[in-house]
Amino acid sequence: MRIDIDRDRFLATLDEQSEFGATDAGGLNRLTLSEADRAVRDWFLEQMDAAGLSTRIDAFGNMFGRRVGDNPDTEPILVGSHLDSQPYGGRFDGGLGVIAALELIRSLNDHDIATRRPIEIVNWTNEEGSRFQPAMQGSGVWAGAHSLEEEYAKTDTEGNTLKDELDRIGYLGDIPAEPGEDYSAYLELHVEQGPYLDEEDRDVGIVDGIVGISWGAITFRGEADHSGPTPMHYRHDALVGAADVITAIRRIPGTLGEKTVGTTGYVDVQPNSINVIPGEVTFTWGFRDPDDDVVDEAFDRVLEEAEAAANREGLAWDWEERMRAPSVDFPDRTVSAVASATEDLGYDAKRMVSGAGHDATHAASVCDTAMVFAVSEDGKSHSEAEYTSPEDCFTAANTLANAALDLAEPITQ
Amino acid sequence: MRIDIDRDRFLATLDEQSEFGATDAGGLNRLTLSEADRAVRDWFLEQMDAAGLSTRIDAFGNMFGRRVGDNPDTEPILVGSHLDSQPYGGRFDGGLGVIAALELIRSLNDHDIATRRPIEIVNWTNEEGSRFQPAMQGSGVWAGAHSLEEEYAKTDTEGNTLKDELDRIGYLGDIPAEPGEDYSAYLELHVEQGPYLDEEDRDVGIVDGIVGISWGAITFRGEADHSGPTPMHYRHDALVGAADVITAIRRIPGTLGEKTVGTTGYVDVQPNSINVIPGEVTFTWGFRDPDDDVVDEAFDRVLEEAEAAANREGLAWDWEERMRAPSVDFPDRTVSAVASATEDLGYDAKRMVSGAGHDATHAASVCDTAMVFAVSEDGKSHSEAEYTSPEDCFTAANTLANAALDLAEPITQ
Repeated sequence: MRIDIDRDRFLATLDEQSEFGATDAGGLNRLTLSEADRAVRDWFLEQMDAAGLSTRIDAFGNMFGRRVGDNPDTEPILVGSHLDSQPYGGRFDGGLGVIAALELIRSLNDHDIATRRPIEIVNWTNEEGSRFQPAMQGSGVWAGAHSLEEEYAKTDTEGNTLKDELDRIGYLGDIPAEPGEDYSAYLELHVEQGPYLDEEDRDVGIVDGIVGISWGAITFRGEADHSGPTPMHYRHDALVGAADVITAIRRIPGTLGEKTVGTTGYVDVQPNSINVIPGEVTFTWGFRDPDDDVVDEAFDRVLEEAEAAANREGLAWDWEERMRAPSVDFPDRTVSAVASATEDLGYDAKRMVSGAGHDATHAASVCDTAMVFAVSEDGKSHSEAEYTSPEDCFTAANTLANAALDLAEPITQ
Repeated sequence: MRIDIDRDRFLATLDEQSEFGATDAGGLNRLTLSEADRAVRDWFLEQMDAAGLSTRIDAFGNMFGRRVGDNPDTEPILVGSHLDSQPYGGRFDGGLGVIAALELIRSLNDHDIATRRPIEIVNWTNEEGSRFQPAMQGSGVWAGAHSLEEEYAKTDTEGNTLKDELDRIGYLGDIPAEPGEDYSAYLELHVEQGPYLDEEDRDVGIVDGIVGISWGAITFRGEADHSGPTPMHYRHDALVGAADVITAIRRIPGTLGEKTVGTTGYVDVQPNSINVIPGEVTFTWGFRDPDDDVVDEAFDRVLEEAEAAANREGLAWDWEERMRAPSVDFPDRTVSAVASATEDLGYDAKRMVSGAGHDATHAASVCDTAMVFAVSEDGKSHSEAEYTSPEDCFTAANTLANAALDLAEPITQ
């Protein structure tokens, strides 16, 4: 059975959500639990009510809306994404998946289509991890990856706790932040945030897994000395050691695999003065690959490089791995539902692994999961310049709707 | 004619000055125009009065004390250094040279030695450049290298202007900040701040010049993208470009000369987040060498390296040279006076070029100049661990006194 979502209504609703926290440059500033987030949540709650969903807010602010199934006792399917944004993010990252889930419900209502399984849509709290860390926090608490109390106590840079902020905006719900029942499947539509679909001129992506990640930090300690009278051979320059390893982090992926990426995103230099040899430098690594063994190898290699650089420059050093997320393989059943939808709809789809973490990472530990990727123009993301054309938004939302309908088991009259 | 300074009084006075702004770790926190600087200035003014000097404060807070010459119309000689310190600096950097100048006057008084030329001692305002930039500011204004009004308007990180701070601590003097007459010579004793004298187990340094310097900054602009889904070959990583050039700045001196040094002291990464490919990085270079042609060559080489790194990584870039100070060669007349003093006193002296700028840099544009270097243990400086032994302090101060006496032309009775 196929469904056709209402293209105009869907695109109009997508535009409407992007007015909450809109920036002058066409992006969004909708940090989690901000006033803009409260406003878009209030609006989204009204839309779920208007679509006839029975809504609930859990103790971590995750918002659910359920459409009954013909057999209310069967395991429901869950479809959604997130409405929060980066400080200066795009209009599509997160919002597209939530509005597509809403449109699925509206279209089922339009066509009076019943499903055997209940369908729930969801807006997860704090996917972005900008204001409070970690990212994918709401889905992580829900899936049991994090402790509720520990995440409640997290603070933003102003010192506000997450729990107080949930309460302040009126989204500290009273039902437990946990599945509470078995779920049959989770589907999420998200923008690719990478260039592959655009580069290959594809219509849509079928995501069958998420890369493994190693994130960590290395600190080099040398000697802060006057940069003038200290001869080169007397120096223990922590920044020179760091620069060596940063260039290695650029090179390591090219020796491991075509999907491997490696990045240093953060550097702190002390005392950071033009006239002083840097005495201490902390910098990060981040490696990702669909194959966990490759992530392991990259991790080993960066530590070897750090040891070599420390020896060359005469530095003390230590390291800390801050996150190791194993790769996720989505099951055939849910991935096939997405693939079948693209075939039925005649879309040119690419099967791919997500290079970024998503709420689907955590959902996959609760139930069978898959994702749909919408084309990201030039792969730009976490930027106001992020763009997905209306056609590509529609294509991805239509794919999501048909895959979800399939998994929800439509009742044919 | 030889003079012997009073070792005990000199060392006791040196200790006394180091109590103003003393830190628990045995160093100094005596930022220019701070309360601690006011206190040490008030104390120093009393010492100059007590030594019979006629004192004056100029419009930039530079403090002078003059001992009359037998012929008051001859050009005076000037001897001094600075009493301000780094935020956590040592007790010797600056203060040693000022107290040695004071001891010269006291010893001349003790022995009732008259000189043909007047002798002036000086405490320059803001040599360190920590609170207000640039370094060597007071001597620079005095020598005409900087405009008084521009330097008055400089602000600290709290937004206080230098002029208001001079006024606040009572050191906005009413005589012009300029030589006002011709000077015969300037002598300055300073700690080496480098390891050569200590390494070679020398008694004292005869400084015959100051290295040339090029300071500048390079900015690379790439694209800030999500560090996960952006393939390596799509990246324009500003930090990778910067790291390439930082390692080049480590290597360039080794290809140019044994005295050449090159440093990156400052790095700013934007947006500086573990999960975002750095979109913009600004970092500094600093090269020094006694030979200006070598500084030129280093400057050319760093720009070549920057261009190559920008091309490899696909970055836009620009650069700015923030300071180019030509090397200074002190004249034979003043250097010989220092050298003769070391010979007369039987010291094992090393003739050397200063790797750091000093107030002597500016004084050298006004009159014949030379410097005396005291041993710096392990070359440590700009650190509370800075150390010069009492013996080495005495040796350097005795050298300064005898060189100054020679240049002031003692009247033999």
